[in-house]
Amino acid sequence: MYPLLKEIRHNPLLWLLVFVPAVFAAHQLTAEAHTLLFTLSVLAIVPLAALLSHATESVAAETGDAVGGLLNATLGNLTELVIALAALRAGQYTLVKASVAGAIVTNTLFMLGASFLLGGLKYHMQEFNRVSARLQAGLLFLATVALVIPSAVGYADQAPAPAFVQQLSVGLSVLLMVAYGLGLVFSLKTHRDMFGSTEHAEGDEAPWPLSLALVTLVGVTVLVALVSEIFVESVQGAALELGMTPAFVGFIVVALVGGAAEMASAFAGARKNRLDLSVGIALGSAAQIALFVAPVLVLLSYAIGPTPMSIQLWPGAVVMILISTITAAMVTNSGRSAWFIGALALLVYTIFAMTLYLLPPRSP
Amino acid sequence: MYPLLKEIRHNPLLWLLVFVPAVFAAHQLTAEAHTLLFTLSVLAIVPLAALLSHATESVAAETGDAVGGLLNATLGNLTELVIALAALRAGQYTLVKASVAGAIVTNTLFMLGASFLLGGLKYHMQEFNRVSARLQAGLLFLATVALVIPSAVGYADQAPAPAFVQQLSVGLSVLLMVAYGLGLVFSLKTHRDMFGSTEHAEGDEAPWPLSLALVTLVGVTVLVALVSEIFVESVQGAALELGMTPAFVGFIVVALVGGAAEMASAFAGARKNRLDLSVGIALGSAAQIALFVAPVLVLLSYAIGPTPMSIQLWPGAVVMILISTITAAMVTNSGRSAWFIGALALLVYTIFAMTLYLLPPRSP
Amino acid sequence: MYPLLKEIRHNPLLWLLVFVPAVFAAHQLTAEAHTLLFTLSVLAIVPLAALLSHATESVAAETGDAVGGLLNATLGNLTELVIALAALRAGQYTLVKASVAGAIVTNTLFMLGASFLLGGLKYHMQEFNRVSARLQAGLLFLATVALVIPSAVGYADQAPAPAFVQQLSVGLSVLLMVAYGLGLVFSLKTHRDMFGSTEHAEGDEAPWPLSLALVTLVGVTVLVALVSEIFVESVQGAALELGMTPAFVGFIVVALVGGAAEMASAFAGARKNRLDLSVGIALGSAAQIALFVAPVLVLLSYAIGPTPMSIQLWPGAVVMILISTITAAMVTNSGRSAWFIGALALLVYTIFAMTLYLLPPRSP
Repeated sequence: MYPLLKEIRHNPLLWLLVFVPAVFAAHQLTAEAHTLLFTLSVLAIVPLAALLSHATESVAAETGDAVGGLLNATLGNLTELVIALAALRAGQYTLVKASVAGAIVTNTLFMLGASFLLGGLKYHMQEFNRVSARLQAGLLFLATVALVIPSAVGYADQAPAPAFVQQLSVGLSVLLMVAYGLGLVFSLKTHRDMFGSTEHAEGDEAPWPLSLALVTLVGVTVLVALVSEIFVESVQGAALELGMTPAFVGFIVVALVGGAAEMASAFAGARKNRLDLSVGIALGSAAQIALFVAPVLVLLSYAIGPTPMSIQLWPGAVVMILISTITAAMVTNSGRSAWFIGALALLVYTIFAMTLYLLPPRSP
Repeated sequence: MYPLLKEIRHNPLLWLLVFVPAVFAAHQLTAEAHTLLFTLSVLAIVPLAALLSHATESVAAETGDAVGGLLNATLGNLTELVIALAALRAGQYTLVKASVAGAIVTNTLFMLGASFLLGGLKYHMQEFNRVSARLQAGLLFLATVALVIPSAVGYADQAPAPAFVQQLSVGLSVLLMVAYGLGLVFSLKTHRDMFGSTEHAEGDEAPWPLSLALVTLVGVTVLVALVSEIFVESVQGAALELGMTPAFVGFIVVALVGGAAEMASAFAGARKNRLDLSVGIALGSAAQIALFVAPVLVLLSYAIGPTPMSIQLWPGAVVMILISTITAAMVTNSGRSAWFIGALALLVYTIFAMTLYLLPPRSP
Repeated sequence: MYPLLKEIRHNPLLWLLVFVPAVFAAHQLTAEAHTLLFTLSVLAIVPLAALLSHATESVAAETGDAVGGLLNATLGNLTELVIALAALRAGQYTLVKASVAGAIVTNTLFMLGASFLLGGLKYHMQEFNRVSARLQAGLLFLATVALVIPSAVGYADQAPAPAFVQQLSVGLSVLLMVAYGLGLVFSLKTHRDMFGSTEHAEGDEAPWPLSLALVTLVGVTVLVALVSEIFVESVQGAALELGMTPAFVGFIVVALVGGAAEMASAFAGARKNRLDLSVGIALGSAAQIALFVAPVLVLLSYAIGPTPMSIQLWPGAVVMILISTITAAMVTNSGRSAWFIGALALLVYTIFAMTLYLLPPRSP
């Protein structure tokens, strides 16, 4: 336990762990205080996500490169997955989809853009390995196609037959997971020489011993799951009380909360002129959510959801993911970055956030 | 005739020529056995397309570079043109449009993607002249714009006036053919130095004597035309009997059949590390269909079709062509290729095929 | 006054100044002769725009680089702004929007394409600094996103609440102006070393003395304003009488008139193998209209328009701006140009013009 306590002492982000017991206590006392529970659960998830991320890396560091890369790749977005699972079990498919789409957009635009901006304010010009960025952008493009095509091609029918949509959702989910697997084989195995400097991404900090890492992994996942339940329960009510639209909360707030730990790593990398690290975390995480977390959720909806969930999103979300993918391809195209490139990506994100914030709630 | 017989002996693909008499015999006996006639005509078209392709190259090789390039460019998709003409005369405009759109998408994604994949499984990294790929991608982009704009701009009117659509279709057809001609002038005449290694594309095999080539060209074209009539007659019935949607048959099956000969050349080029050849065939053929075959069909519909045919496609087809164009631009952007790039293009194609296969037939 | 008279003697474009008094006289005599007034006002605006452009540069040359660049950037599209203001005051919001959208599209496709074509007919291959082109393309992309998102995200509601649209329009206008300002800081201040050869863009001609330049600036702006009023008054009637659709007039004719002076500079640069100049004028002007003129018009509509004007365009215009942005990114991507690249951009523009020309007028 010593390395864990030491970590907590040195990392102010982890002091927020005090909100974990607080949110459970508050939930026992006043289950109806939506805004309070929402705020407390947000504050509790952030440090748990940071612990989860550190534990995953420690396990990955122990197991050698190939297995470690795989582990990192599958557990890297555990927080987002656990939050989405809580919403899935509650049958809140709109929230599930908004949080998945929001995580893709937030990682691609906000995390990448803020990294470029923060790095660019310190360094005149930064360089990074664009091969990795191209791979992730290619995977994101594939996921976007999978989201666009069912609506575009089935369009003529106006109301697509549910059977068609379900079969297609399962088929596309499997296809996206295959694509993600092939991407891992390509970048970790057959062509790993091309992905040079992104290796040992977050290797700065000393890894924990394996036993501590595994215990943390399991224990913290359980805690995230419990806090997520309170979060999902309170989010709708809190949105109403705070005067925010549900779309804004699901798309922006949840995504920023779920990605807080990764953002801390990505921004730190940019300030240390290790932009490969930042680009790898931001786009790698977005691709993982689009090609791994989302398909897993679709397939799991058959097991734990009240009804099967389709892969279809509302058109606005598809357009935002499409624009994010194009922006990612555009800003990483030259392999060089300056502050304005980051500002551009952040401005695109601001347009999304502004529109969702002002969007009138749908009439019932 | 000797080179022709020698060719047939050495090329197993040509042994399928036995199906040419078979399909005529079967059509005489049982004109209602749709699936049988469909299968036989598919098997008969493949070797005829290969002969046609070889004859065209032989004529082109005899006539010097500029005329030869022009000939290759105008006759290269003769199979697709003859099949589409048969459907045009029968007034099956949906089949015409699906096969044209499907040929563009199949050449861009399947032929290019499979070339990259097959080449990449043998070579760690392959290079090609990206100038040629950029020209073809630019032409494809222009064709996509010509397909998108009439719908997008005329949208406000809900039901566009037929006169407007017809005038615009003729105007756009002429414009696309002009663009195609300018592209030939650019690549064969004013800037041929930039298109270096794609010259003498399929020059591996010894060309036939001119007289044999010309006789083959005429004779095989007539045979393709006759088989195509049976193919067009049987395709709808066969689709029903096989449980495939008409969209899937027109878009995927017909396109794979029509392009079989070119695919054989493109894949052989990739396995010999001559990726310029593969990219040239795949994208050159797609651009030719979009900017030459499709406009010719629109203009010919005034002469031989029951009513004029417009250039408008159903929205799903436009989206698929758009995505194919973007994918082509993306995967050829760096001028280098590895197996995963090919896999990515094939996965996009699989998404299209899967969606079209599962698409419920429109209610009448 | 001497430099002004000398300029007029040497520049045949300025001989058109004779139409300035002519249009005022004609307006006094026959306010109903729409086509005559339309033609005269077009002929009068062209030389006034050229004078305005020269005066702006002369003032900019006097004030040092940073302020000069700013001045050039804010006054460079003064003609378009004054014409649009006249239409805004008259409450002709459709004309305002068509002329703004048309100016973006015309500068991006026609001015850039014709520059590449004219330069390419003289030089086999031309090079230019693509950093500047990328910045402008990035800004245009941001403006396109701002136009697409409100419609795409608010779509589900069918008829968006006016309050939402107005708030969003103001918010997006401010955001676009901030982005434009950041772009100026980036290119004129923090990273001006990267934008090398585009400096002193139109420095060929000797600048005028400051006093003459300022007097010309004020006097000609007043004249443009007066002529624009007649132009806006007559344009609808003239379109009817000439058998042109209002969309074609607003989008194509007004844009070509408003940009005539800049086109003369851009084309001259291309013929002198100074393509940086041409690209800078064409894309810089398009970005300025999208991120500065359009937002100013939206904000000014609160002060001088009969009702607030939103930033939303009809879907066809958004699609055309989107395609123009993609085309600009594509043709400037390699930093090299040949005649065919220009032809391609012009063909895209021709597709737009042809569609708008043939478009049937909306039934009332």
